[in-house]
Amino acid sequence: MATAQETLSFDAGGRGTREITDEVTHVVTAAGIETGLCHVFSRHTSAGVIITENADPTVRADLERLLSEWVPDGWREFRHTAEGNDDMSAHARTLLAGDSVLIPIQNGRLALGTWQGIFLWEHRTGGHRREVVVTLLGD
Amino acid sequence: MATAQETLSFDAGGRGTREITDEVTHVVTAAGIETGLCHVFSRHTSAGVIITENADPTVRADLERLLSEWVPDGWREFRHTAEGNDDMSAHARTLLAGDSVLIPIQNGRLALGTWQGIFLWEHRTGGHRREVVVTLLGD
Amino acid sequence: MATAQETLSFDAGGRGTREITDEVTHVVTAAGIETGLCHVFSRHTSAGVIITENADPTVRADLERLLSEWVPDGWREFRHTAEGNDDMSAHARTLLAGDSVLIPIQNGRLALGTWQGIFLWEHRTGGHRREVVVTLLGD
Repeated sequence: MATAQETLSFDAGGRGTREITDEVTHVVTAAGIETGLCHVFSRHTSAGVIITENADPTVRADLERLLSEWVPDGWREFRHTAEGNDDMSAHARTLLAGDSVLIPIQNGRLALGTWQGIFLWEHRTGGHRREVVVTLLGD
Repeated sequence: MATAQETLSFDAGGRGTREITDEVTHVVTAAGIETGLCHVFSRHTSAGVIITENADPTVRADLERLLSEWVPDGWREFRHTAEGNDDMSAHARTLLAGDSVLIPIQNGRLALGTWQGIFLWEHRTGGHRREVVVTLLGD
Repeated sequence: MATAQETLSFDAGGRGTREITDEVTHVVTAAGIETGLCHVFSRHTSAGVIITENADPTVRADLERLLSEWVPDGWREFRHTAEGNDDMSAHARTLLAGDSVLIPIQNGRLALGTWQGIFLWEHRTGGHRREVVVTLLGD
């Protein structure tokens, strides 16, 4: 049984998704773990990591529109508004969409389905530097 | 420390939930791990795995109604519509409800609470074959 | 590679969040695992564990208001109403907000970001005793 861990940093340039499947795959390949789990964790409460469809970018645009409906920026009921209209909505979006994903490792590779990709989702409208911790456990 | 992994396949017959607690329990029992974690992962972006109340089927019917309110099939703002009215909504439903669950193993058994069951939730309206990867890590 | 597991019990006094970061940290410190994962799991379908902003309590109050919008108590479409207006909404809130979190362990400590805290979220309006299983795997 072995463990491996690496912290990846990204300049997330304002609200939106950025695919990080390749960066995570690289950590898995380097670790040489055949069977186990790969955890991809955002160390933030305003940016998360999700799995979704990887082929058609309009899927992520549609998710963006839907999330904006569920969690309106500057919603009248929000009290936590110190950092602007997108502050509290970013926390709520992160809770709703998720902060981390966990993926099986099978035969030394991520056992993602054909259409599954890993994405960092920045929920603030301005650019932020984000840290993602990749942890592997297995044999 | 040991690992075990098995891929289960299900004919998910159109939108709805199907309990898979027994199938997952069987993998745990066969592995002989006393203390650890059990990961149940859907390899799809239109069908996920959830934990919810296992006693009264109206709970899942109510979740179904609520999810249909949050993510209307054929929502006017969706652009990803190539495969029909339930295509994009299925991706959004999977993100919202979750694609995988992680459950403690305690004394060789899933440490689920009395009312917790594991369910495969098919979000497309038509029938699909779905793969679920069960990964165990522990002692 | 080592495992550690502890079940924590809390008197969750009615709907709302309660920070449990210290209790989870204590389990991690006692286990002496340097690199790995920490899983915090609610054994209930009406109370979950989340990560969110830990500095300003209005964030959790705002999340509470938003969740009440998404999942109204006593929604007219609910059929599972045996235990009252907050019964089915509590199941739906748990699904939406999440039942468990998974956090990297780095250098013997939880690798939470500066603003991330762990919270038990009771979704029933009355008080309940809740069990949270903390499982650690790593080196």
